[in-house]
Amino acid sequence: MEKIRIGICGYGNLGKGIESEITKSLDMELVAIFTRRDPASLKVVSNTTVDHIDNVKNYQGKIDVMIMCGGSSTDLPVQVPEMAKLFNTVDSFDTHAKIPEYFEKVNASAEEGNNLSLISCGWDPGMFSLMRLYSNSILPDGSTYTFWGKGISQGHSDAIRRIEGVKDARQYTIPVENAMQRVRNGENPNLTTRDKHLRECFVVAEDGADKERIENEIKTMPNYFDEYDTTVHFISQEELDSKHSKMPHGGFVIHSGKTGDNNNHIIEFSLKLDSNPEFTSSVLLAFSRAIYRMNKMGQTGARTVFDVPPILLSPKDAKDLRKNLL
Amino acid sequence: MEKIRIGICGYGNLGKGIESEITKSLDMELVAIFTRRDPASLKVVSNTTVDHIDNVKNYQGKIDVMIMCGGSSTDLPVQVPEMAKLFNTVDSFDTHAKIPEYFEKVNASAEEGNNLSLISCGWDPGMFSLMRLYSNSILPDGSTYTFWGKGISQGHSDAIRRIEGVKDARQYTIPVENAMQRVRNGENPNLTTRDKHLRECFVVAEDGADKERIENEIKTMPNYFDEYDTTVHFISQEELDSKHSKMPHGGFVIHSGKTGDNNNHIIEFSLKLDSNPEFTSSVLLAFSRAIYRMNKMGQTGARTVFDVPPILLSPKDAKDLRKNLL
Repeated sequence: MEKIRIGICGYGNLGKGIESEITKSLDMELVAIFTRRDPASLKVVSNTTVDHIDNVKNYQGKIDVMIMCGGSSTDLPVQVPEMAKLFNTVDSFDTHAKIPEYFEKVNASAEEGNNLSLISCGWDPGMFSLMRLYSNSILPDGSTYTFWGKGISQGHSDAIRRIEGVKDARQYTIPVENAMQRVRNGENPNLTTRDKHLRECFVVAEDGADKERIENEIKTMPNYFDEYDTTVHFISQEELDSKHSKMPHGGFVIHSGKTGDNNNHIIEFSLKLDSNPEFTSSVLLAFSRAIYRMNKMGQTGARTVFDVPPILLSPKDAKDLRKNLL
Repeated sequence: MEKIRIGICGYGNLGKGIESEITKSLDMELVAIFTRRDPASLKVVSNTTVDHIDNVKNYQGKIDVMIMCGGSSTDLPVQVPEMAKLFNTVDSFDTHAKIPEYFEKVNASAEEGNNLSLISCGWDPGMFSLMRLYSNSILPDGSTYTFWGKGISQGHSDAIRRIEGVKDARQYTIPVENAMQRVRNGENPNLTTRDKHLRECFVVAEDGADKERIENEIKTMPNYFDEYDTTVHFISQEELDSKHSKMPHGGFVIHSGKTGDNNNHIIEFSLKLDSNPEFTSSVLLAFSRAIYRMNKMGQTGARTVFDVPPILLSPKDAKDLRKNLL
């Protein structure tokens, strides 16, 4: 079997996840990992080639899909439009408000390079987006609610760590069970930000730091915490390391819709993930397979998960899938 | 806006559901309902044309998609291969074991007529199949479990009604909560038929009938009940009519899969439906939109839900969907 040749651009949690999970795809092989750091300094788990991102052009014709593993705030908006001129790409750009603008930019680059680029893939945006689309298309007379958690929010944890006197911190986003229950009951409630999620913070304070001030700064932080019910726990570094070092996450997409004579229907999709980056990596790999195939069929430009026929995600053949999964 | 012209073939619960739910799709119009009965005898809810199925050829060029609403056991295997020569079709054929053979037959007919036919659409097969495919593609190192219910099984209700001394009956399929919990816990259990579902029967006996014999005949009925824990309640016709006349159904697809160093992930999809036929109708309508569009793009032959890019299900445009649902 001819294998799909994968490149990884960026070696953080996501890049490491791709490196680990690609071993489960017998139709794929990892060709190289690219970094902005000194390649010699990078300790990778597999024995894959590591090269500097400046040398990426040398790999044209040797890599079928480049999986972009940088961050959404500064890396992807710069890297993907450049990379899409050289390779098919898949990324997990998740700044929802900037997706339309990002799509257009990546689309122009991919068209220029005759490549195909999937943007904003993962679980949200990604699988959750698909559930919102399926639900709304099937039951247009309805409302969709998205709840996140329970899980670690990297952005909120970072925000706490920037407060003076904070040594380390983890923040959990927790969906409000009662709000979810009201949606499942078909009540179609109007839910405010505060109604939907709680925020729970585990904080390691520096010796002698003013804990009362830290707690107050967290709870009143605009955008991040002020609109939520927030609880703060001060714990030791040891406890944080032993109990809160994993990266679990998940969430719920619940659609409540009506048909006929007041019949109600609930469509619910949920994820409970032990490792957010490893699951996201698994999604990116399945969609890389589809992007490779769609480009082979002659497609170029930017795409989202909405455009991908599900059958292209699987390494199995169509007959087998119809027989066993339909 | 040019509307998608829909025909309904067969006017049972499903046909009535299409007739009711198409009003929510502003880009569709119902052209005609076809029946094997005397058209004059059919009381339809809308003011749609009713015609005999023998006259269906007269509607070529006037109907874009024919939604096939007959039963899977005898209607669809005969009707769809004929109809696919004349129109694009969408059906809900649900005899899982016969899908491969059915697919080939419909494919040949649709190719002959330059039409596109979607087979086995609805919720299972249909939405549940999609969830099985997405889950398996993303987490190949895992197991998928499908649970049905709580809901009325038409086939099992019919089987009870055929027993001597039974006047009327309804059978509920009920998933075993403990079995689902074990799957959600990531235990990957081996579950027998008996472990997964209970069967609860509400039976109206004829005057003077031997209830003990009826109960025994139900519980020992091969294939239908003998492999399940079954409970039987004898009630009055009035109670059956007032409490058990609706057609609720639903179920769960739960996939448990591993990544990395023993991290577990649970993907769960569930449906809770007040009306099985109305929900199924809603799914068929959304997929009819996609089939219409795919045929316009030049596609012919048979397809399943696996082949349909999700974006084609929605009447909204791509920019709007990327902005609001991604």
